[in-house]
Amino acid sequence: MAGPIEFWFDFSSPYAYLGAQRIEAVAEKHGRAVDWRPFLLGVTFKTTGMQPLSEIPLKGDYLKHDLPRSARRMGVPVQMPQPFPFMSVAASRAVIWLKEHHPEKVSAVVRALFHKAFGEGGDISSAAAVVAVAAEAGVDAEELGAAMPDPALKDKLRAEVELANEKGVFGAPYMIVDGEPFWGHDRVDEIDAWLASGGW
Amino acid sequence: MAGPIEFWFDFSSPYAYLGAQRIEAVAEKHGRAVDWRPFLLGVTFKTTGMQPLSEIPLKGDYLKHDLPRSARRMGVPVQMPQPFPFMSVAASRAVIWLKEHHPEKVSAVVRALFHKAFGEGGDISSAAAVVAVAAEAGVDAEELGAAMPDPALKDKLRAEVELANEKGVFGAPYMIVDGEPFWGHDRVDEIDAWLASGGW
Repeated sequence: MAGPIEFWFDFSSPYAYLGAQRIEAVAEKHGRAVDWRPFLLGVTFKTTGMQPLSEIPLKGDYLKHDLPRSARRMGVPVQMPQPFPFMSVAASRAVIWLKEHHPEKVSAVVRALFHKAFGEGGDISSAAAVVAVAAEAGVDAEELGAAMPDPALKDKLRAEVELANEKGVFGAPYMIVDGEPFWGHDRVDEIDAWLASGGW
Repeated sequence: MAGPIEFWFDFSSPYAYLGAQRIEAVAEKHGRAVDWRPFLLGVTFKTTGMQPLSEIPLKGDYLKHDLPRSARRMGVPVQMPQPFPFMSVAASRAVIWLKEHHPEKVSAVVRALFHKAFGEGGDISSAAAVVAVAAEAGVDAEELGAAMPDPALKDKLRAEVELANEKGVFGAPYMIVDGEPFWGHDRVDEIDAWLASGGW
């Protein structure tokens, strides 16, 4: 099997939520896996000087219009979590832990966390909330709950954030396939075309 | 004929250059005209706090990779003008003047100016350069040259920039059709789908 599609995302990005709905189907179509790579956009913003979309005058208004429109086209529910933006550290750590200990559950938990946040407008900012969602997706709550505060896990997320920066990841979703970077949920179709044609 | 597709753009935006290559074909397919609306992104940035893409760490690197890749896919030449970013005031004024006095020449001049800047990497920042390009596209150089310094023309561009702000235009290309806004050259396909389906 050829290399995976790296899907770099922050759980607090609504466009990462949209991209996450479609990337697995595109990957599967081309015999690829999806490598879920949570990172912290807020840290990246310190490098780029950028801000959350919702905070930018005019662009924030466009987001409020474009997000539900894009979701309608895809046929998926969307609600903005309250409060927004929210801290995605706990959710990111959980995914990193699952990748090491229960890789077969990563996809289901990512989708469940995104659904809770942007499908239902729920709160996934605390470790307790993250563990509860993961438990519903079949993860042992006690085992995950015990792992969450581990300093080694915190270090792993920190290293991922640094790696994102080294790879040039400045937004979400940011996808890398065979070294080729694609930014934005509206480029998922382009990845499909790229893999189908062998590139251009 | 139904209302035009408003194509808001800054001549110094490379993605507006790409969008300009395709918007007329999409408009024509659906029996629409293109209303070319030059404005000044630099003024808009004062409202939004945003910066030119090329100046943003990491994002600027992505631009350097994505722009030629997107152009290859479309089969159009692309080169970054030097210097970049450049002042697009003169080119914008010329288009606004043409819309009033020689509307039948607007499309050809917009394409010629964009081609000079991003197709050939040329300089269209001065009034003299703009007049020369417009003359090659069939405009009377003397007439346009005389009109360019007119304070009333300067006011018209200023009013357009304000109108862009009121309409929520924060980037380029920014397209509005039947009141529906679409941002980014990679949304031209979405406009095509929107018009074909009657929206969603």
